[in-house]
Amino acid sequence: MKLIIAVVQDKDSNRLSNALIKSNFRATKLASTGGFLKAGNTTFMIGVEDEKIDEAIGVIKANCKVRDQLVSSVSPVGGTTDSYIPFPIEVQVGGAAVFVVPVEKFEHF
Amino acid sequence: MKLIIAVVQDKDSNRLSNALIKSNFRATKLASTGGFLKAGNTTFMIGVEDEKIDEAIGVIKANCKVRDQLVSSVSPVGGTTDSYIPFPIEVQVGGAAVFVVPVEKFEHF
Amino acid sequence: MKLIIAVVQDKDSNRLSNALIKSNFRATKLASTGGFLKAGNTTFMIGVEDEKIDEAIGVIKANCKVRDQLVSSVSPVGGTTDSYIPFPIEVQVGGAAVFVVPVEKFEHF
Ligand code: NI
Ligand code: NI
Ligand code: NI
Repeated sequence: MKLIIAVVQDKDSNRLSNALIKSNFRATKLASTGGFLKAGNTTFMIGVEDEKIDEAIGVIKANCKVRDQLVSSVSPVGGTTDSYIPFPIEVQVGGAAVFVVPVEKFEHF
Repeated sequence: MKLIIAVVQDKDSNRLSNALIKSNFRATKLASTGGFLKAGNTTFMIGVEDEKIDEAIGVIKANCKVRDQLVSSVSPVGGTTDSYIPFPIEVQVGGAAVFVVPVEKFEHF
Repeated sequence: MKLIIAVVQDKDSNRLSNALIKSNFRATKLASTGGFLKAGNTTFMIGVEDEKIDEAIGVIKANCKVRDQLVSSVSPVGGTTDSYIPFPIEVQVGGAAVFVVPVEKFEHF
């Protein structure tokens, strides 16, 4: 048994929760800040059997890895603030830091 | 020295806190969600000397284990919504997931 | 790689965050309560290479260790509640509990 401690962006948190449940992993979530990720983030604690570690990390990677995303931005046209045209810009979102910690004993009751 | 990480139901959190203090264990509490327990829960981190691990787990078990509890429910009588009679139903409450993690170094200052 | 889990007083939290960033350590912060420290506190999780553990603990110690601090108190004069004179009293602030936990695998993506 290992304890996976994963820090992910808030925007990926719900999707990761659902994906973990679908794969029969049980995660406890804690609100966190700072670290790798500038904004608010979520810390997942997941108790995992040794032989399922790679599968669990794969689920995290599939749902949280850094990727570029187009977001709509707005900027003044021609240096004046009279007219604005929305346009897409590419920003980097996602990312996760994953620690696998040994567990000497696990009990649940 | 070990670090016990225990996820328990919110409703057992205060009782467990008091029981740990009475037994001279020092716990740090973090608000958490999800995992074994559907609703909001509390994650306890407890630094414990090796020879006291079983005692600490015993305190958690005594205060958090799954048990049936009678709660008052209310339901319409005779299929209509005109008259309600409160009656007791048995629900399962409590439960804890306990991870014992090795600590290579502990300092406090 | 190790995971440092440090519980510090809220009043030292911002200063410690800044000091860790200045020393190139990346910390994730979680709001916590209880434990060594009576009031609200902050739990830092810091992933650290083995050879930098002592440096990281040094940063925590420098910013969080227990020290006496003069605070302004106010108390009635002469046993009546008519006149109050502010005066300094010495209180103990700070303190940290630091756990170093082994990490079997670390990934970030
Ligand atoms: Ni079970
Ligand atoms: Ni002491
Ligand atoms: Ni990197």
